[in-house]
Amino acid sequence: MKKHNFSAGPCILPQEVLKKAAEAIENFNGINLSLIEISHRSKEFIEVMETARGLVKELLNLPEGYSVLFLQGGASLEFLMTAYNLMKVNGKAGYMDTGAWSAKAIKEAKGFGDVDIFASSKESVYNHIPKKYTVPTDVDYIHITSNNTIYGTQFKEFPKTNSLLVCDMSSDIFSRQLDFSKFDLVYAGAQKNMGPAGTTLVIVKDEILGKTGRNIPAMLDYQTHIKAESMFNTPPVFPVYVSMLTLQWLKDLGGVAAIEKLNEEKAAILYKEIDKNPLFNGFAKKEDRSTMNVTFTLANDDHKEAFDKIWNAAGVSGIKGHRSVGGYRASIYNAMPKESIQVLVNAMQQLEKEI
Amino acid sequence: MKKHNFSAGPCILPQEVLKKAAEAIENFNGINLSLIEISHRSKEFIEVMETARGLVKELLNLPEGYSVLFLQGGASLEFLMTAYNLMKVNGKAGYMDTGAWSAKAIKEAKGFGDVDIFASSKESVYNHIPKKYTVPTDVDYIHITSNNTIYGTQFKEFPKTNSLLVCDMSSDIFSRQLDFSKFDLVYAGAQKNMGPAGTTLVIVKDEILGKTGRNIPAMLDYQTHIKAESMFNTPPVFPVYVSMLTLQWLKDLGGVAAIEKLNEEKAAILYKEIDKNPLFNGFAKKEDRSTMNVTFTLANDDHKEAFDKIWNAAGVSGIKGHRSVGGYRASIYNAMPKESIQVLVNAMQQLEKEI
Repeated sequence: MKKHNFSAGPCILPQEVLKKAAEAIENFNGINLSLIEISHRSKEFIEVMETARGLVKELLNLPEGYSVLFLQGGASLEFLMTAYNLMKVNGKAGYMDTGAWSAKAIKEAKGFGDVDIFASSKESVYNHIPKKYTVPTDVDYIHITSNNTIYGTQFKEFPKTNSLLVCDMSSDIFSRQLDFSKFDLVYAGAQKNMGPAGTTLVIVKDEILGKTGRNIPAMLDYQTHIKAESMFNTPPVFPVYVSMLTLQWLKDLGGVAAIEKLNEEKAAILYKEIDKNPLFNGFAKKEDRSTMNVTFTLANDDHKEAFDKIWNAAGVSGIKGHRSVGGYRASIYNAMPKESIQVLVNAMQQLEKEI
Repeated sequence: MKKHNFSAGPCILPQEVLKKAAEAIENFNGINLSLIEISHRSKEFIEVMETARGLVKELLNLPEGYSVLFLQGGASLEFLMTAYNLMKVNGKAGYMDTGAWSAKAIKEAKGFGDVDIFASSKESVYNHIPKKYTVPTDVDYIHITSNNTIYGTQFKEFPKTNSLLVCDMSSDIFSRQLDFSKFDLVYAGAQKNMGPAGTTLVIVKDEILGKTGRNIPAMLDYQTHIKAESMFNTPPVFPVYVSMLTLQWLKDLGGVAAIEKLNEEKAAILYKEIDKNPLFNGFAKKEDRSTMNVTFTLANDDHKEAFDKIWNAAGVSGIKGHRSVGGYRASIYNAMPKESIQVLVNAMQQLEKEI
């Protein structure tokens, strides 16, 4: 039976991408060798890396002066690389605390200097994005998390600052059109909208680097990777290749403008049912609802067994909510088809009929 | 035409591993989902990670008290993690300089404390492993590189020390039987004998950690990863899975004892021809010759065009030597079949006949 894969990440990827990725494992581009057994310095792989980097620039409409890197270590390594590369010796940074991932970023930054947490929604289990706050001005940079996977909240407007703006976009990059000239450093683990786990996209404005007075280890210094065109050491070949395929798929679909429209339509179908169906409650505040992760709970937990039976029978998978929120979380990333969302909505409606 | 893939890394992997890896991309274990679109916290992937870690322990016959981790960032990130985790504040470490990768490890360690380079073969273009040296005793650890991919040299005996012994085994781990109780920390990028690029194997004796007095960022602290059973953040799912498949293949073949015998036979075939054929010279000193990377040059460079034509026509690929050594390098890792080595030997013999 076909599965409807609502996993939060690693998550659904386009079927045609999976097919091409499998082919490349057996015979890459007809060269009678596997993608994963050729040199990363071969012309074939250099072309993959350059195509992937070029697609990022094109799809996000990046201004001049930004570098695109495919690194390793996930957002978790970026938490410390951000601070290492941008926080001056005896410096200070401003962080917004909008969820568990923000909190982890804050923890790492504290190892490098002062951290001013100038806004937080922790006390309401991160069910919204703080609105009333004063952005500190005596900081080296401001850090935010654009989409909060666990809670289903998403920044619709970004803080205005004269400092550098750093954004963890792991779970909503490539999902909507943004003006990237307003950001100085953006990072994102691949495993949501871009590809499989194992590579991290970094977009950095070149001119902000090299100004902290710190002696940064080579592998943690963005300038190392910029200079080496993202090939300082052996890159994660397969994750980069699948990211390239996924970005090509997105381009063929009409790019970020087209997927943004689709994502809004998809999210609207599900939120409409949550608001209409008396058996369910949305978790995130309406004005901050994410188009990527839809969090909801049962109004009455006694219906859990019945509901779980219905969606399981329909082939839905991966909608169990995170333990800190409970209930359900439907992750509806770029590759999620509208039909799968309808299957979930049908399951919710069936519960209403049965009760 | 079938290719005979002598790439230095990423490199040849067993054909049956590639086939299974391709299948898992389309439908993993018959669950109707791809390996790369399921949660890393799913029972299916946790089993992959645990099987892979278990196979490492079993195949290497690791003693009690050692942890096995699959991390990211390659040996290049380990260069600094080694120093971060083991070099005390105001501490000192002893390094042997046996090639370009040793030199990179030394460079990173210098950011953390004093480095005593107590032996080096740099002046003879790293064509041998130093034998006469005094191991320093006033150090936090000793660091060596067991196999030097670029130059084709390999430690046959390891330095004796009362300090901790750290070894970069990126290019010969799983190729020969070793007594791992003599090592305190071993690391290896996957992309030689273990799997595709994108994961790094770390084997560490638990009791040596947490003793430096340093405040280590979470992602760079081995204790973080030990505590989280190698799942502190999203692991590189596909590289770990293919590593698991490759280790299973090795176990089915008879384990490290069986592959060691095969590797010795394979290397002997090629070195015998190098020594017998007057048109070729071996690069590395005989007593230090690697069973993984065989480096050789033409006695007369005028024969280059003729030789290149012969091996190209035979389907040989990836034997161009590293620019710092020149000539040729045949990397004959675990997955390289004897037949491919015979094809290369035949090409060398054909050149002798033609000249």
